[in-house]
Amino acid sequence: MPLVDIQLIEGVFTPEQKREMIEKVTDTMVAIEGEAMRGVTWVRVQELGSGEWGIGGKALSTADVKALQGMPAPQKG
Amino acid sequence: MPLVDIQLIEGVFTPEQKREMIEKVTDTMVAIEGEAMRGVTWVRVQELGSGEWGIGGKALSTADVKALQGMPAPQKG
Amino acid sequence: MPLVDIQLIEGVFTPEQKREMIEKVTDTMVAIEGEAMRGVTWVRVQELGSGEWGIGGKALSTADVKALQGMPAPQKG
Amino acid sequence: MPLVDIQLIEGVFTPEQKREMIEKVTDTMVAIEGEAMRGVTWVRVQELGSGEWGIGGKALSTADVKALQGMPAPQKG
Amino acid sequence: MPLVDIQLIEGVFTPEQKREMIEKVTDTMVAIEGEAMRGVTWVRVQELGSGEWGIGGKALSTADVKALQGMPAPQKG
Amino acid sequence: MPLVDIQLIEGVFTPEQKREMIEKVTDTMVAIEGEAMRGVTWVRVQELGSGEWGIGGKALSTADVKALQGMPAPQKG
Repeated sequence: MPLVDIQLIEGVFTPEQKREMIEKVTDTMVAIEGEAMRGVTWVRVQELGSGEWGIGGKALSTADVKALQGMPAPQKG
Repeated sequence: MPLVDIQLIEGVFTPEQKREMIEKVTDTMVAIEGEAMRGVTWVRVQELGSGEWGIGGKALSTADVKALQGMPAPQKG
Repeated sequence: MPLVDIQLIEGVFTPEQKREMIEKVTDTMVAIEGEAMRGVTWVRVQELGSGEWGIGGKALSTADVKALQGMPAPQKG
Repeated sequence: MPLVDIQLIEGVFTPEQKREMIEKVTDTMVAIEGEAMRGVTWVRVQELGSGEWGIGGKALSTADVKALQGMPAPQKG
Repeated sequence: MPLVDIQLIEGVFTPEQKREMIEKVTDTMVAIEGEAMRGVTWVRVQELGSGEWGIGGKALSTADVKALQGMPAPQKG
Repeated sequence: MPLVDIQLIEGVFTPEQKREMIEKVTDTMVAIEGEAMRGVTWVRVQELGSGEWGIGGKALSTADVKALQGMPAPQKG
């Protein structure tokens, strides 16, 4: 039953990272819901085009996200 | 009103089969909801990339689905 | 693989009609994709609140849809 | 918080028009919800393939929508 | 054709504000796409439960959003 | 940027388990994408009604999923 949809901007993650998201998010879900649910746990990845994801009205490009990833992690408070 | 979204893995179905899904699923919905609803019945098809649909943590490729389609139908119990 | 999402306005269809949509739309999909795909064909129904579905800027209530259903079917051309 | 998803048929709108949709729909939302919500207002654009959006069972191509846009606006009643 | 889905947390906006979102977002879209598209422009509102929308791993309640709305608007730079 | 939507059947998981899904799935995503992305990682939970999720044409109730959870885990091959 659970359906998990992961939406990203294209060109930010490698195919290997996307496969890792599918595997690890499935494992995370199964750890909570029980191993018996694994076969009906669907985790999918979809990508939106660069410039088609706006935050506060500003369209984010692939390059914007790459730049954001490179920033030092903010202090957690 | 009804909105029906059909999501598939790319490369599994032909354009003709996708058009058939739109026509036949619309007819199926209209048979239940009433012919007067036809004009506001939207049926759409979207495709995800090969390898971006995980079942039980294993990413399904177009080839995997093609292989599955070729299997003899399981006995219905 | 196929995932089919049917979205409706609440209060328009009975539980029996919604179950019928799940069964019949599944059968329609399986007729196109092959019987071997039945076990991985998911069809779901979701309902939006009355007044939360706008067409051309006018919010549709459950009563509006009921009235529409009662109209004679338009001539198909 | 608000998430706004705008779905279109590919090839109908220019990148400039899609950026305009993100900006103007964000402004419209913020005018209702309050300026403090701007930073957590996400507006996204996604496109479906030509022929993959059915209305009343008839698949709409990019050309169909272009033709529709060119029609004189219907009288509002 | 365009389909616009607005997702909110329940209990933050009044029915009047949600109707206003449907009307104003439709007008914003029609101003870009052309008046001829009004009749096939669908704008819908859906609400998620309080505590079911996580940002950075922290679940947002209706009260959290209300508090955020009350904050003075950040300086736009 | 990443948006993760988790869809469940209502009544299967406790509020505590749903909060755990939001926290743990966020952590899993951040471990792959980088800590700098935490603030723009949204993870949401949505629930469908009992009987509104069909697998192979059979509508799944909350009780069906509870029974499935209680089954011993299948052997992984």
